[in-house]
Amino acid sequence: MKKLINDPQEAVRESLGGLALAHPDILKVCLDPVYVSRVDAPIQGKVGVISGGGSGHEPMHAGFVGKGMLDAACPGQVFTSPTPDQIEAATRAADGGAGVLHIVKNYTGDIMNFEMAAELCQMQGGEVRAVVINDDVAVEDSLYTAGRRGVGTTVLAEKICGAAAERRYDLARVEALCRKVNENGRSMGMALTSCTVPAAGRPTFELGENEMEMGIGIHGEPGRERTALASAREITERMAEAVLADLPFRSGDRVIAMVNGMGGTPLMELYLVYRELADVLKGAGIALARRLVGNYITSLEMAGCSITLLRADDELLSLWDDPVLTPGLRWGI
Amino acid sequence: MKKLINDPQEAVRESLGGLALAHPDILKVCLDPVYVSRVDAPIQGKVGVISGGGSGHEPMHAGFVGKGMLDAACPGQVFTSPTPDQIEAATRAADGGAGVLHIVKNYTGDIMNFEMAAELCQMQGGEVRAVVINDDVAVEDSLYTAGRRGVGTTVLAEKICGAAAERRYDLARVEALCRKVNENGRSMGMALTSCTVPAAGRPTFELGENEMEMGIGIHGEPGRERTALASAREITERMAEAVLADLPFRSGDRVIAMVNGMGGTPLMELYLVYRELADVLKGAGIALARRLVGNYITSLEMAGCSITLLRADDELLSLWDDPVLTPGLRWGI
Repeated sequence: MKKLINDPQEAVRESLGGLALAHPDILKVCLDPVYVSRVDAPIQGKVGVISGGGSGHEPMHAGFVGKGMLDAACPGQVFTSPTPDQIEAATRAADGGAGVLHIVKNYTGDIMNFEMAAELCQMQGGEVRAVVINDDVAVEDSLYTAGRRGVGTTVLAEKICGAAAERRYDLARVEALCRKVNENGRSMGMALTSCTVPAAGRPTFELGENEMEMGIGIHGEPGRERTALASAREITERMAEAVLADLPFRSGDRVIAMVNGMGGTPLMELYLVYRELADVLKGAGIALARRLVGNYITSLEMAGCSITLLRADDELLSLWDDPVLTPGLRWGI
Repeated sequence: MKKLINDPQEAVRESLGGLALAHPDILKVCLDPVYVSRVDAPIQGKVGVISGGGSGHEPMHAGFVGKGMLDAACPGQVFTSPTPDQIEAATRAADGGAGVLHIVKNYTGDIMNFEMAAELCQMQGGEVRAVVINDDVAVEDSLYTAGRRGVGTTVLAEKICGAAAERRYDLARVEALCRKVNENGRSMGMALTSCTVPAAGRPTFELGENEMEMGIGIHGEPGRERTALASAREITERMAEAVLADLPFRSGDRVIAMVNGMGGTPLMELYLVYRELADVLKGAGIALARRLVGNYITSLEMAGCSITLLRADDELLSLWDDPVLTPGLRWGI
C-alpha cells in the first residue's frame, strides 16, 4: 500500500489536524469526539447546516466547512459512518438557536447514526431536520444502501443550503430547498482503477488492464456494468445520457454541472471530459449555467470521474453565486 | 493505459477546449498556435506576465491565467516544451505596451524556446525580460536540465509577480521581484508511483511495490535516491530538512509554504503531510505565514508530493494576499 500516512488508524485524525493548521481563519477541529466546525460557530439566529460521512472523499465534507457552506462536518473513519456522538456534538456546535439541518447521503449506516444523533439533540430541545441525498442514477440498492446512493448532488446541496442559511432562511425553508436540490440533481460515476482503504491495505476491487466500471459507487460499490475501456467521449456520453434520461432533463433546462474527479485522475482529463459534456448538453438543448470541474467528492486515489447535473432555477443560481469561503470551494470573498 | 482521453495527440488541445468552456469569464484559448490568455488581455499599461511549459502539470500554467496572476500561458504537448511561435504569440497577446516578463522553469528546451521567442518579439520592438526558476534542491543537473530544475516556486512566483503587475509595477521591478522569489524559494518532491505520458502509453519509470523515489522531478526524472517506503512523518522530515538546509532557512524566518500533490495523491494525505511539515517548521523556529495545500504543479497521475518553502518578507506577503481570480487559485474576488 503506497500512501503518505503514518498509522492507518490515525490517518483521519492526523489529516484533520493538518486541515485545522492550514485554515485557522475558517474552521476548527475537535478531536474528541471528532468533528469540524466553523471558527465562528454557532452563529446566533442562523440555521446550522451540517453534513458528514466516512472520510476518504475529501474535500467533502470537512473541506466544505466555512462561511456560506457548512457550519460543521463529522468525518468518520475512511468509508465508515460517523458515530452518533460525533454527529450530536457537531449538531450542538452548529446550533445557534434557529435549528440544524442534517444533509445525509443515502447510506444505511449514515442514515441510522444521523437519526440517532437527531433524536438525542431533540430530546434536549434542539430542532433538527434531515434531508437524505439519493442522486446516483447508476443502480437501485447497493452494497451499503437501500434505494439510490447519495453522491455529487451532496456538494451542490451543501453550497446552496449553506448560502440560504447565511441569508437567514428559516429551518423549514432551508430544508425545503435541500429537498428541491435533491429532487433536481442526478449523478453517475465511473472508475478506471480501484482505491485502497488504509486500514484494509489492499485494493477494494480488481479491474483488469482493459476494464472500467461504469456506475461505480464512491466506496467502490459495483456499478451498472464492467466493460472494455472506451474513449472519453463515449464514457461521457454514456454517463450524461443516463443522467439526462433519469430526471428527465429537457431542452431549455438550465443546469449547474459538476465534472468531479475520483481522486486519482489528472485535472487535464477532467477538463477534457467537461468539453465532451458541454457537447452533449448543447446537443440536448440544455444550458450550462454554472459549473465545477475538479476533485470535490473523491474516493481516495481512485482514477475515474463522475458527472452531476442539477436543474437550476433563478433561486438556485442566485444562491449558488453567493460568496463562499471554505478550504475546498471559495469565491466572492 | 487508463486515461479519460480520446486521441493522445489531441488530449492537450481538447483539455484546453474544456478549460475555455468552463471559465469564459476568466480566459480564452487560441488553438493556432496554442496559448491561453486573460479574457481582457492585453491590458494597456500593465506588464504582461506569462509562463508556459509542457502540459501534464495542471493547473499550472494555463489554470493560473487570470486577474492577479498570469496574462498568458503557452502549454506544450505533455512534458514537451512549447514552441517559439506559441510563446511569441502568447507574448504578443500579453503585451499592453509595458513589456512582458517570461517566467521560465529551468529545462533546456523551455529556456531555448523562450529565448528564441523573446528575440523574435524584441526584433519587433517588444520589451521582454526572462527569469529562470531553478528551485529544486534534489539534484544538480538532471535529465532535461543543466543546473537545478524549476518546480514549485514557479507557482508562487506567478502569483506574486502577477499581483505586482496588477499593481502596475514596471517591468524592471516585476523582474527583480521574480528573481527575489526564485532566490528565496526551495522545493523537493517525491513519488510513490510513476506517471504515464499519453503518447508513450506506458509508465515513465518503474517503482517496486515497496519503493519510493525521493527528489523526483516533475517529469519523472530521477531524484536523489530510491528507497524503501517510509511513514509520512519520515518522508516529510527528509524533504523539509533538505529544503531548509539549502537556502538555508533560519529560525525567525517567515515562509509561504506549499504542500503540493503530484496528481494521484488524495487531499487527505496532503493535509496529513502539511501537519508533519508544520511540526518540523515549528521545531526549526520558522513561522508558517501563508500556505497552499493541494494539487498545483502536478505530474499527470503520479502519486507523491512536493514541499516548497518561500522565505517571505512584508512585500512578498502583501503581494501574496492580493486578490487573484484564476481557475486554479482564487481569493478576494
